[in-house]
Amino acid sequence: KVIWTVLVTILGYANSLPVGDDSLCTAQELAKYRIIFTGKWSQTAFPKQYPLYRPPAQWSSLLGVTHSSDYSMWKKNEYASNGVRDFAEKGEAWVLMKEIEEAGEKIQSVHGIFSAPAISSGTGQTSTELEAHPRHPLVSFVVRIVPSPDWFVGIDSLNLCEGDHWVDEVSVDLFPYDAGTDSGFTFSSPNFATIPQDTVTEITCSSPSHPANSFYYPKLKILPPIAQVKMVKIKKSQLGLSAPFINLPAKSNEIIDSVS
Amino acid sequence: KVIWTVLVTILGYANSLPVGDDSLCTAQELAKYRIIFTGKWSQTAFPKQYPLYRPPAQWSSLLGVTHSSDYSMWKKNEYASNGVRDFAEKGEAWVLMKEIEEAGEKIQSVHGIFSAPAISSGTGQTSTELEAHPRHPLVSFVVRIVPSPDWFVGIDSLNLCEGDHWVDEVSVDLFPYDAGTDSGFTFSSPNFATIPQDTVTEITCSSPSHPANSFYYPKLKILPPIAQVKMVKIKKSQLGLSAPFINLPAKSNEIIDSVS
Repeated sequence: KVIWTVLVTILGYANSLPVGDDSLCTAQELAKYRIIFTGKWSQTAFPKQYPLYRPPAQWSSLLGVTHSSDYSMWKKNEYASNGVRDFAEKGEAWVLMKEIEEAGEKIQSVHGIFSAPAISSGTGQTSTELEAHPRHPLVSFVVRIVPSPDWFVGIDSLNLCEGDHWVDEVSVDLFPYDAGTDSGFTFSSPNFATIPQDTVTEITCSSPSHPANSFYYPKLKILPPIAQVKMVKIKKSQLGLSAPFINLPAKSNEIIDSVS
Repeated sequence: KVIWTVLVTILGYANSLPVGDDSLCTAQELAKYRIIFTGKWSQTAFPKQYPLYRPPAQWSSLLGVTHSSDYSMWKKNEYASNGVRDFAEKGEAWVLMKEIEEAGEKIQSVHGIFSAPAISSGTGQTSTELEAHPRHPLVSFVVRIVPSPDWFVGIDSLNLCEGDHWVDEVSVDLFPYDAGTDSGFTFSSPNFATIPQDTVTEITCSSPSHPANSFYYPKLKILPPIAQVKMVKIKKSQLGLSAPFINLPAKSNEIIDSVS
Protein backbone atom coordinates (compact mmCIF):
# COMPACT_ATOMS: atom_id res chain seq x y z
CA LYS A 1 0.00 0.00 0.00
CA VAL A 2 2.86 2.35 0.80
CA ILE A 3 4.60 1.36 -2.42
CA TRP A 4 1.41 2.01 -4.34
CA THR A 5 1.02 5.46 -2.81
CA VAL A 6 4.61 6.32 -3.64
CA LEU A 7 4.21 5.07 -7.17
CA VAL A 8 1.08 7.10 -7.59
CA THR A 9 2.89 10.17 -6.33
CA ILE A 10 5.78 9.61 -8.71
CA LEU A 11 3.53 9.15 -11.71
CA GLY A 12 1.75 12.39 -10.98
CA TYR A 13 -1.34 11.74 -8.95
CA ALA A 14 -3.15 14.92 -9.77
CA ASN A 15 -2.78 14.61 -13.49
CA SER A 16 -3.38 11.01 -14.28
CA LEU A 17 -5.62 9.49 -11.68
CA PRO A 18 -9.05 10.33 -10.39
CA VAL A 19 -9.25 11.44 -6.82
CA GLY A 20 -11.65 10.30 -4.16
CA ASP A 21 -12.79 6.93 -2.95
CA ASP A 22 -12.93 5.38 -6.42
CA SER A 23 -9.20 5.87 -6.99
CA LEU A 24 -8.21 2.36 -5.99
CA CYS A 25 -10.62 0.27 -8.05
CA THR A 26 -8.41 -2.18 -9.89
CA ALA A 27 -11.16 -4.57 -10.99
CA GLN A 28 -10.55 -5.69 -14.55
CA GLU A 29 -14.11 -5.88 -15.79
CA LEU A 30 -17.43 -4.17 -15.88
CA ALA A 31 -19.95 -5.28 -13.28
CA LYS A 32 -23.69 -5.62 -13.62
CA TYR A 33 -26.02 -5.25 -10.68
CA ARG A 34 -29.70 -5.63 -10.10
CA ILE A 35 -30.89 -2.72 -7.96
CA ILE A 36 -34.08 -3.23 -5.93
CA PHE A 37 -35.73 -0.28 -4.24
CA THR A 38 -38.27 -0.99 -1.48
CA GLY A 39 -40.60 1.70 -0.20
CA LYS A 40 -41.33 1.36 3.53
CA TRP A 41 -43.45 4.45 3.85
CA SER A 42 -46.47 2.87 5.58
CA GLN A 43 -49.12 4.59 7.63
CA THR A 44 -48.12 2.38 10.55
CA ALA A 45 -44.53 3.54 10.54
CA PHE A 46 -45.29 7.16 9.63
CA PRO A 47 -48.80 7.92 10.95
CA LYS A 48 -48.41 11.69 11.04
CA GLN A 49 -50.17 13.40 8.11
CA TYR A 50 -49.85 10.19 6.09
CA PRO A 51 -51.16 11.13 2.59
CA LEU A 52 -54.20 8.99 1.77
CA TYR A 53 -55.44 10.64 -1.41
CA ARG A 54 -54.91 13.23 -4.13
CA PRO A 55 -52.31 11.87 -4.32
CA PRO A 56 -51.82 9.04 -1.83
CA ALA A 57 -48.28 8.32 -0.56
CA GLN A 58 -46.13 7.02 -3.39
CA TRP A 59 -42.67 7.12 -4.99
CA SER A 60 -41.54 8.70 -8.23
CA SER A 61 -39.45 6.98 -10.86
CA LEU A 62 -35.93 6.16 -9.68
CA LEU A 63 -33.19 7.96 -11.62
CA GLY A 64 -29.59 6.93 -11.10
CA VAL A 65 -26.11 7.03 -12.52
CA THR A 66 -22.79 5.20 -12.24
CA HIS A 67 -19.90 7.61 -12.16
CA SER A 68 -16.43 8.59 -10.93
CA SER A 69 -15.73 10.96 -8.06
CA ASP A 70 -15.50 13.79 -10.58
CA TYR A 71 -19.28 13.78 -10.75
CA SER A 72 -21.76 14.28 -7.95
CA MET A 73 -25.50 13.95 -8.42
CA TRP A 74 -26.32 15.40 -5.01
CA LYS A 75 -24.57 15.81 -1.70
CA LYS A 76 -25.69 16.46 1.85
CA ASN A 77 -25.03 20.06 2.95
CA GLU A 78 -24.37 21.23 -0.60
CA TYR A 79 -26.71 23.02 -2.98
CA ALA A 80 -28.92 20.90 -5.20
CA SER A 81 -28.45 21.34 -8.97
CA ASN A 82 -31.33 22.59 -11.09
CA GLY A 83 -31.87 19.04 -12.24
CA VAL A 84 -32.14 17.66 -8.72
CA ARG A 85 -34.45 20.56 -7.80
CA ASP A 86 -36.83 19.78 -10.70
CA PHE A 87 -36.76 16.11 -9.83
CA ALA A 88 -37.25 16.57 -6.08
CA GLU A 89 -40.02 19.14 -6.51
CA LYS A 90 -41.90 17.71 -9.47
CA GLY A 91 -40.43 14.35 -10.39
CA GLU A 92 -39.38 15.95 -13.68
CA ALA A 93 -36.26 14.08 -14.84
CA TRP A 94 -35.31 15.86 -18.03
CA VAL A 95 -32.94 18.55 -16.72
CA LEU A 96 -31.20 16.05 -14.44
CA MET A 97 -30.74 13.68 -17.38
CA LYS A 98 -29.21 16.53 -19.39
CA GLU A 99 -26.85 17.37 -16.51
CA ILE A 100 -25.71 13.76 -16.36
CA GLU A 101 -25.28 13.65 -20.14
CA GLU A 102 -23.15 16.77 -20.00
CA ALA A 103 -20.95 15.34 -17.25
CA GLY A 104 -20.53 12.23 -19.38
CA GLU A 105 -19.54 14.17 -22.47
CA LYS A 106 -17.41 16.94 -21.01
CA ILE A 107 -15.44 15.29 -18.25
CA GLN A 108 -16.14 11.60 -18.91
CA SER A 109 -17.15 11.23 -15.31
CA VAL A 110 -20.24 9.15 -16.03
CA HIS A 111 -20.56 5.57 -17.20
CA GLY A 112 -24.29 5.06 -17.48
CA ILE A 113 -27.72 6.19 -16.46
CA PHE A 114 -30.51 3.95 -15.22
CA SER A 115 -34.12 4.35 -14.22
CA ALA A 116 -36.79 2.20 -12.62
CA PRO A 117 -40.55 2.65 -12.76
CA ALA A 118 -42.44 4.62 -10.13
CA ILE A 119 -44.24 2.87 -7.25
CA SER A 120 -47.89 3.83 -6.86
CA SER A 121 -48.02 3.40 -3.09
CA GLY A 122 -45.82 4.15 -0.09
CA THR A 123 -44.84 0.51 0.32
CA GLY A 124 -43.80 -1.52 -2.71
CA GLN A 125 -40.83 -2.33 -4.86
CA THR A 126 -39.25 -1.40 -8.15
CA SER A 127 -36.15 -2.65 -9.82
CA THR A 128 -33.79 -2.28 -12.73
CA GLU A 129 -30.27 -3.20 -13.77
CA LEU A 130 -27.14 -1.05 -13.68
CA GLU A 131 -23.62 -1.36 -14.98
CA ALA A 132 -20.51 -0.08 -13.19
CA HIS A 133 -17.05 0.46 -14.64
CA PRO A 134 -13.70 0.30 -12.81
CA ARG A 135 -13.21 4.00 -13.57
CA HIS A 136 -16.86 4.72 -12.67
CA PRO A 137 -17.62 2.47 -9.68
CA LEU A 138 -19.83 4.89 -7.75
CA VAL A 139 -23.63 4.74 -7.69
CA SER A 140 -25.95 7.64 -7.00
CA PHE A 141 -29.69 7.89 -7.40
CA VAL A 142 -32.74 9.84 -6.31
CA VAL A 143 -36.40 8.96 -5.79
CA ARG A 144 -38.88 11.71 -5.05
CA ILE A 145 -41.26 11.36 -2.08
CA VAL A 146 -44.78 11.99 -3.45
CA PRO A 147 -46.50 14.13 -2.27
CA SER A 148 -43.91 16.45 -0.75
CA PRO A 149 -42.48 19.94 -1.28
CA ASP A 150 -38.97 18.84 -2.39
CA TRP A 151 -38.23 15.71 -0.40
CA PHE A 152 -36.42 12.69 -1.70
CA VAL A 153 -34.46 9.63 -0.74
CA GLY A 154 -31.32 8.48 -2.44
CA ILE A 155 -27.75 7.37 -2.40
CA ASP A 156 -24.73 9.60 -2.96
CA SER A 157 -21.60 8.01 -4.45
CA LEU A 158 -21.77 4.51 -3.00
CA ASN A 159 -18.64 2.64 -4.08
CA LEU A 160 -19.38 -0.83 -5.51
CA CYS A 161 -15.69 -1.66 -5.94
CA GLU A 162 -13.42 -3.05 -3.22
CA GLY A 163 -9.85 -3.03 -4.43
CA ASP A 164 -9.67 -5.54 -7.26
CA HIS A 165 -13.20 -6.93 -7.02
CA TRP A 166 -16.81 -5.88 -7.09
CA VAL A 167 -18.91 -6.27 -3.95
CA ASP A 168 -21.47 -9.07 -4.17
CA GLU A 169 -24.32 -7.38 -2.43
CA VAL A 170 -25.05 -4.21 -0.52
CA SER A 171 -28.16 -2.98 1.29
CA VAL A 172 -28.71 0.52 2.61
CA ASP A 173 -31.55 1.97 4.69
CA LEU A 174 -32.79 5.26 3.33
CA PHE A 175 -34.01 8.35 5.16
CA PRO A 176 -35.69 11.50 3.84
CA TYR A 177 -33.77 14.52 2.53
CA ASP A 178 -34.92 18.06 1.83
CA ALA A 179 -33.56 19.47 -1.44
CA GLY A 180 -33.52 22.97 0.06
CA THR A 181 -35.48 24.53 -2.78
CA ASP A 182 -39.05 24.64 -1.43
CA SER A 183 -40.01 25.83 2.04
CA GLY A 184 -43.09 23.62 2.43
CA PHE A 185 -43.27 21.97 5.83
CA THR A 186 -45.72 19.15 5.20
CA PHE A 187 -46.35 16.51 2.55
CA SER A 188 -49.09 18.54 0.92
CA SER A 189 -47.75 22.07 1.42
CA PRO A 190 -48.31 24.37 -1.57
CA ASN A 191 -45.27 25.39 -3.60
CA PHE A 192 -43.21 28.06 -1.83
CA ALA A 193 -39.74 28.58 -3.22
CA THR A 194 -36.87 28.85 -0.75
CA ILE A 195 -35.00 32.06 -1.62
CA PRO A 196 -32.10 32.06 -1.34
CA GLN A 197 -31.89 28.34 -1.96
CA ASP A 198 -30.81 26.25 1.03
CA THR A 199 -28.49 23.24 0.96
CA VAL A 200 -29.62 19.61 0.92
CA THR A 201 -30.36 18.54 4.48
CA GLU A 202 -31.45 15.32 6.11
CA ILE A 203 -34.91 15.40 7.65
CA THR A 204 -34.96 13.72 11.05
CA CYS A 205 -37.58 13.19 13.74
CA SER A 206 -36.39 16.39 15.41
CA SER A 207 -35.23 18.54 12.49
CA PRO A 208 -36.70 20.78 11.23
CA SER A 209 -37.59 21.34 14.87
CA HIS A 210 -41.19 22.39 14.46
CA PRO A 211 -44.33 20.43 15.41
CA ALA A 212 -45.92 21.13 12.01
CA ASN A 213 -43.24 19.19 10.18
CA SER A 214 -44.54 15.93 8.73
CA PHE A 215 -41.58 13.92 10.04
CA TYR A 216 -41.49 15.55 13.49
CA TYR A 217 -41.86 12.74 16.04
CA PRO A 218 -40.48 14.16 19.30
CA LYS A 219 -40.82 10.84 21.12
CA LEU A 220 -38.58 8.97 18.70
CA LYS A 221 -34.81 8.94 18.81
CA ILE A 222 -34.52 8.16 15.13
CA LEU A 223 -36.98 7.78 12.25
CA PRO A 224 -37.61 4.28 10.96
CA PRO A 225 -36.08 3.87 7.46
CA ILE A 226 -38.60 5.16 4.93
CA ALA A 227 -37.11 3.01 2.17
CA GLN A 228 -34.33 0.56 1.48
CA VAL A 229 -32.14 -0.20 -1.49
CA LYS A 230 -30.36 -3.42 -2.30
CA MET A 231 -27.83 -3.98 -5.06
CA VAL A 232 -26.93 -7.54 -6.01
CA LYS A 233 -24.16 -8.40 -8.44
CA ILE A 234 -25.42 -10.42 -11.39
CA LYS A 235 -23.24 -13.49 -11.70
CA LYS A 236 -21.41 -13.92 -14.98
CA SER A 237 -22.85 -17.37 -15.43
CA GLN A 238 -26.26 -15.78 -15.32
CA LEU A 239 -25.56 -13.34 -18.11
CA GLY A 240 -27.62 -14.11 -21.14
CA LEU A 241 -30.97 -13.47 -22.59
CA SER A 242 -32.81 -13.22 -19.34
CA ALA A 243 -30.08 -11.58 -17.31
CA PRO A 244 -32.00 -8.39 -16.64
CA PHE A 245 -34.64 -10.38 -14.80
CA ILE A 246 -32.64 -12.74 -12.64
CA ASN A 247 -33.31 -12.19 -8.96
CA LEU A 248 -36.42 -10.09 -9.34
CA PRO A 249 -37.87 -10.96 -5.94
CA ALA A 250 -41.45 -12.01 -5.30
CA LYS A 251 -43.58 -9.35 -3.73
CA SER A 252 -43.47 -10.08 -0.01
CA ASN A 253 -46.51 -9.91 2.24
CA GLU A 254 -45.00 -7.04 4.09
CA ILE A 255 -45.04 -4.76 1.10
CA ILE A 256 -48.42 -5.70 -0.31
CA ASP A 257 -49.79 -3.68 2.60
CA SER A 258 -50.35 -0.73 0.30
CA VAL A 259 -52.70 2.21 0.55
CA SER A 260 -54.64 3.18 -2.55
CA LYS B 1 -39.47 -15.83 -51.60
CA VAL B 2 -41.11 -19.03 -52.83
CA ILE B 3 -37.80 -20.86 -52.50
CA TRP B 4 -37.37 -19.54 -49.00
CA THR B 5 -40.83 -20.67 -47.98
CA VAL B 6 -40.21 -24.12 -49.38
CA LEU B 7 -36.87 -24.38 -47.63
CA VAL B 8 -38.45 -23.32 -44.38
CA THR B 9 -41.14 -25.94 -44.81
CA ILE B 10 -38.58 -28.64 -45.53
CA LEU B 11 -36.46 -27.77 -42.51
CA GLY B 12 -39.45 -27.93 -40.23
CA TYR B 13 -40.92 -24.50 -39.82
CA ALA B 14 -42.81 -25.15 -36.64
CA ASN B 15 -39.87 -26.57 -34.75
CA SER B 16 -36.94 -24.44 -35.63
CA LEU B 17 -38.06 -20.97 -36.58
CA PRO B 18 -40.05 -18.30 -34.83
CA VAL B 19 -43.33 -17.37 -36.41
CA GLY B 20 -44.71 -13.92 -37.06
CA ASP B 21 -43.27 -10.76 -38.47
CA ASP B 22 -39.90 -11.16 -36.80
CA SER B 23 -39.19 -14.44 -38.61
CA LEU B 24 -37.12 -12.84 -41.33
CA CYS B 25 -34.66 -10.78 -39.29
CA THR B 26 -31.26 -11.86 -40.52
CA ALA B 27 -29.27 -9.00 -39.00
CA GLN B 28 -26.02 -10.30 -37.55
CA GLU B 29 -25.72 -8.06 -34.53
CA LEU B 30 -27.55 -6.53 -31.63
CA ALA B 31 -28.82 -3.02 -32.16
CA LYS B 32 -29.03 -0.18 -29.66
CA TYR B 33 -31.63 2.55 -29.92
CA ARG B 34 -32.37 5.72 -28.09
CA ILE B 35 -36.12 5.94 -27.52
CA ILE B 36 -37.62 9.39 -26.99
CA PHE B 37 -41.20 9.75 -25.82
CA THR B 38 -42.89 13.14 -26.27
CA GLY B 39 -46.13 13.98 -24.52
CA LYS B 40 -48.42 16.21 -26.61
CA TRP B 41 -51.31 16.27 -24.19
CA SER B 42 -51.78 20.05 -24.01
CA GLN B 43 -54.86 21.94 -22.94
CA THR B 44 -54.93 23.57 -26.38
CA ALA B 45 -55.14 20.26 -28.22
CA PHE B 46 -57.38 18.54 -25.66
CA PRO B 47 -59.43 21.29 -23.95
CA LYS B 48 -62.21 19.03 -22.71
CA GLN B 49 -61.91 18.25 -18.98
CA TYR B 50 -58.16 18.89 -19.17
CA PRO B 51 -56.83 17.96 -15.69
CA LEU B 52 -55.27 21.02 -14.08
CA TYR B 53 -54.64 19.79 -10.54
CA ARG B 54 -54.71 16.91 -8.06
CA PRO B 55 -53.13 15.60 -10.17
CA PRO B 56 -52.54 17.75 -13.25
CA ALA B 57 -52.22 16.03 -16.63
CA GLN B 58 -49.03 13.95 -16.72
CA TRP B 59 -47.45 10.69 -17.87
CA SER B 60 -46.34 7.68 -15.86
CA SER B 61 -42.99 5.98 -16.21
CA LEU B 62 -42.51 4.27 -19.56
CA LEU B 63 -42.11 0.50 -19.33
CA GLY B 64 -41.03 -1.41 -22.40
CA VAL B 65 -39.58 -4.64 -23.69
CA THR B 66 -37.80 -6.03 -26.74
CA HIS B 67 -39.14 -9.44 -27.68
CA SER B 68 -40.05 -12.04 -30.30
CA SER B 69 -43.51 -12.64 -31.69
CA ASP B 70 -43.97 -15.35 -29.03
CA TYR B 71 -44.52 -12.60 -26.50
CA SER B 72 -47.13 -9.88 -26.51
CA MET B 73 -47.26 -7.11 -23.94
CA TRP B 74 -50.69 -5.87 -25.03
CA LYS B 75 -52.80 -6.04 -28.14
CA LYS B 76 -55.79 -4.11 -29.45
CA ASN B 77 -59.05 -6.06 -29.13
CA GLU B 78 -57.50 -8.62 -26.77
CA TYR B 79 -57.73 -8.80 -23.00
CA ALA B 80 -55.11 -6.94 -20.98
CA SER B 81 -52.92 -9.04 -18.68
CA ASN B 82 -53.01 -8.44 -14.93
CA GLY B 83 -49.71 -6.61 -15.28
CA VAL B 84 -51.01 -4.25 -17.95
CA ARG B 85 -54.17 -3.69 -15.88
CA ASP B 86 -52.15 -2.71 -12.79
CA PHE B 87 -49.97 -0.44 -14.88
CA ALA B 88 -52.81 1.21 -16.81
CA GLU B 89 -54.94 1.72 -13.70
CA LYS B 90 -52.31 2.66 -11.14
CA GLY B 91 -48.95 2.99 -12.86
CA GLU B 92 -47.83 0.02 -10.77
CA ALA B 93 -45.14 -1.77 -12.78
CA TRP B 94 -44.26 -4.72 -10.60
CA VAL B 95 -46.66 -7.38 -11.89
CA LEU B 96 -45.96 -6.42 -15.50
CA MET B 97 -42.22 -6.71 -14.85
CA LYS B 98 -42.78 -10.18 -13.39
CA GLU B 99 -44.83 -11.21 -16.43
CA ILE B 100 -42.05 -10.08 -18.71
CA GLU B 101 -39.45 -11.86 -16.61
CA GLU B 102 -41.46 -15.07 -16.78
CA ALA B 103 -41.79 -14.83 -20.57
CA GLY B 104 -38.02 -14.35 -20.72
CA GLU B 105 -37.28 -17.36 -18.56
CA LYS B 106 -39.90 -19.83 -19.75
CA ILE B 107 -40.11 -19.32 -23.48
CA GLN B 108 -37.08 -17.10 -24.11
CA SER B 109 -39.30 -14.68 -25.94
CA VAL B 110 -37.84 -11.58 -24.32
CA HIS B 111 -34.47 -9.91 -24.81
CA GLY B 112 -34.59 -6.96 -22.44
CA ILE B 113 -36.71 -4.60 -20.44
CA PHE B 114 -36.33 -0.84 -20.34
CA SER B 115 -37.92 2.04 -18.52
CA ALA B 116 -37.83 5.82 -18.70
CA PRO B 117 -38.74 8.33 -16.01
CA ALA B 118 -42.24 9.75 -15.71
CA ILE B 119 -43.11 13.19 -17.13
CA SER B 120 -44.73 15.55 -14.65
CA SER B 121 -46.86 17.42 -17.18
CA GLY B 122 -48.95 16.60 -20.23
CA THR B 123 -46.33 17.97 -22.60
CA GLY B 124 -42.70 17.04 -22.12
CA GLN B 125 -40.17 14.39 -22.97
CA THR B 126 -38.48 11.38 -21.48
CA SER B 127 -35.90 9.04 -22.91
CA THR B 128 -33.89 5.91 -22.40
CA GLU B 129 -31.92 3.35 -24.36
CA LEU B 130 -33.02 -0.07 -25.54
CA GLU B 131 -31.31 -3.06 -27.10
CA ALA B 132 -32.86 -5.33 -29.74
CA HIS B 133 -31.70 -8.77 -30.80
CA PRO B 134 -32.17 -10.44 -34.21
CA ARG B 135 -34.34 -13.06 -32.53
CA HIS B 136 -36.10 -10.37 -30.50
CA PRO B 137 -36.50 -7.40 -32.85
CA LEU B 138 -39.95 -6.25 -31.69
CA VAL B 139 -40.54 -3.32 -29.35
CA SER B 140 -43.57 -2.85 -27.12
CA PHE B 141 -44.15 -0.35 -24.35
CA VAL B 142 -46.85 1.32 -22.30
CA VAL B 143 -47.18 4.72 -20.64
CA ARG B 144 -50.16 5.41 -18.41
CA ILE B 145 -52.22 8.57 -18.95
CA VAL B 146 -52.46 10.30 -15.53
CA PRO B 147 -55.09 10.92 -14.31
CA SER B 148 -57.34 8.37 -16.03
CA PRO B 149 -59.34 5.25 -15.20
CA ASP B 150 -57.19 2.78 -17.18
CA TRP B 151 -56.02 4.70 -20.21
CA PHE B 152 -52.61 4.43 -21.76
CA VAL B 153 -50.60 4.97 -24.90
CA GLY B 154 -48.07 2.56 -26.27
CA ILE B 155 -46.64 0.50 -29.06
CA ASP B 156 -47.41 -3.15 -29.72
CA SER B 157 -44.70 -5.24 -31.42
CA LEU B 158 -43.07 -2.66 -33.68
CA ASN B 159 -40.42 -4.44 -35.76
CA LEU B 160 -37.05 -2.64 -35.77
CA CYS B 161 -35.49 -5.13 -38.19
CA GLU B 162 -35.82 -4.97 -41.96
CA GLY B 163 -34.42 -8.14 -43.47
CA ASP B 164 -30.69 -8.08 -42.78
CA HIS B 165 -30.44 -4.62 -41.25
CA TRP B 166 -31.82 -2.51 -38.44
CA VAL B 167 -33.94 0.53 -39.27
CA ASP B 168 -32.17 3.82 -38.63
CA GLU B 169 -35.05 5.76 -37.22
CA VAL B 170 -38.76 5.38 -36.70
CA SER B 171 -41.41 7.80 -35.39
CA VAL B 172 -44.95 6.89 -34.46
CA ASP B 173 -47.87 9.08 -33.40
CA LEU B 174 -49.66 7.70 -30.38
CA PHE B 175 -53.37 7.71 -29.53
CA PRO B 176 -55.15 6.76 -26.31
CA TYR B 177 -56.21 3.21 -25.48
CA ASP B 178 -58.60 1.89 -22.83
CA ALA B 179 -57.29 -1.20 -21.02
CA GLY B 180 -60.87 -2.47 -20.59
CA THR B 181 -60.53 -3.00 -16.85
CA ASP B 182 -62.13 0.14 -15.39
CA SER B 183 -65.43 1.63 -16.52
CA GLY B 184 -64.57 5.24 -15.69
CA PHE B 185 -65.58 7.64 -18.45
CA THR B 186 -63.51 10.70 -17.62
CA PHE B 187 -59.95 11.50 -16.57
CA SER B 188 -60.91 11.78 -12.92
CA SER B 189 -63.63 9.12 -12.66
CA PRO B 190 -63.50 7.11 -9.43
CA ASN B 191 -62.42 3.47 -9.66
CA PHE B 192 -65.18 1.26 -11.05
CA ALA B 193 -64.06 -2.18 -12.17
CA THR B 194 -65.34 -3.44 -15.52
CA ILE B 195 -66.82 -6.89 -14.85
CA PRO B 196 -66.47 -8.92 -16.91
CA GLN B 197 -63.26 -7.36 -18.15
CA ASP B 198 -63.43 -5.84 -21.64
CA THR B 199 -60.74 -6.00 -24.31
CA VAL B 200 -58.21 -3.25 -25.02
CA THR B 201 -59.85 -0.67 -27.29
CA GLU B 202 -58.68 2.49 -28.96
CA ILE B 203 -60.36 5.65 -27.69
CA THR B 204 -61.31 7.96 -30.54
CA CYS B 205 -63.11 11.28 -30.81
CA SER B 206 -66.37 9.38 -31.38
CA SER B 207 -65.89 6.19 -29.36
CA PRO B 208 -66.99 5.57 -26.67
CA SER B 209 -69.91 7.42 -28.21
CA HIS B 210 -71.06 9.37 -25.21
CA PRO B 211 -70.78 13.13 -24.61
CA ALA B 212 -69.40 12.57 -21.10
CA ASN B 213 -66.29 10.86 -22.43
CA SER B 214 -63.16 12.96 -21.98
CA PHE B 215 -61.99 12.35 -25.56
CA TYR B 216 -65.43 12.80 -27.17
CA TYR B 217 -65.03 15.62 -29.73
CA PRO B 218 -67.95 15.15 -32.16
CA LYS B 219 -66.72 17.90 -34.48
CA LEU B 220 -63.36 16.26 -35.10
CA LYS B 221 -62.74 13.52 -37.62
CA ILE B 222 -59.72 12.24 -35.75
CA LEU B 223 -58.04 13.11 -32.45
CA PRO B 224 -54.70 14.89 -32.62
CA PRO B 225 -51.89 12.57 -31.51
CA ILE B 226 -51.66 12.73 -27.72
CA ALA B 227 -48.01 11.64 -27.76
CA GLN B 228 -45.25 10.59 -30.10
CA VAL B 229 -42.39 8.15 -29.88
CA LYS B 230 -39.15 8.20 -31.82
CA MET B 231 -36.51 5.50 -31.88
CA VAL B 232 -33.09 6.34 -33.29
CA LYS B 233 -30.38 3.74 -33.85
CA ILE B 234 -27.22 4.57 -31.96
CA LYS B 235 -24.35 4.45 -34.41
CA LYS B 236 -21.59 2.00 -33.68
CA SER B 237 -18.97 4.71 -33.85
CA GLN B 238 -20.83 6.47 -31.09
CA LEU B 239 -20.73 3.51 -28.74
CA GLY B 240 -18.57 4.19 -25.77
CA LEU B 241 -18.73 5.78 -22.42
CA SER B 242 -21.33 8.33 -23.22
CA ALA B 243 -23.38 6.24 -25.61
CA PRO B 244 -26.51 6.26 -23.48
CA PHE B 245 -26.68 10.03 -23.78
CA ILE B 246 -25.95 10.64 -27.42
CA ASN B 247 -28.83 12.38 -29.15
CA LEU B 248 -30.69 13.39 -26.04
CA PRO B 249 -32.50 16.31 -27.65
CA ALA B 250 -32.76 19.79 -26.22
CA LYS B 251 -36.11 20.62 -24.74
CA SER B 252 -37.95 22.44 -27.50
CA ASN B 253 -40.08 25.52 -26.88
CA GLU B 254 -43.16 23.65 -27.91
CA ILE B 255 -42.94 21.23 -25.05
CA ILE B 256 -41.90 23.66 -22.32
CA ASP B 257 -45.55 24.78 -22.47
CA SER B 258 -46.37 22.70 -19.41
CA VAL B 259 -49.11 23.00 -16.84
CA SER B 260 -48.18 22.63 -13.19
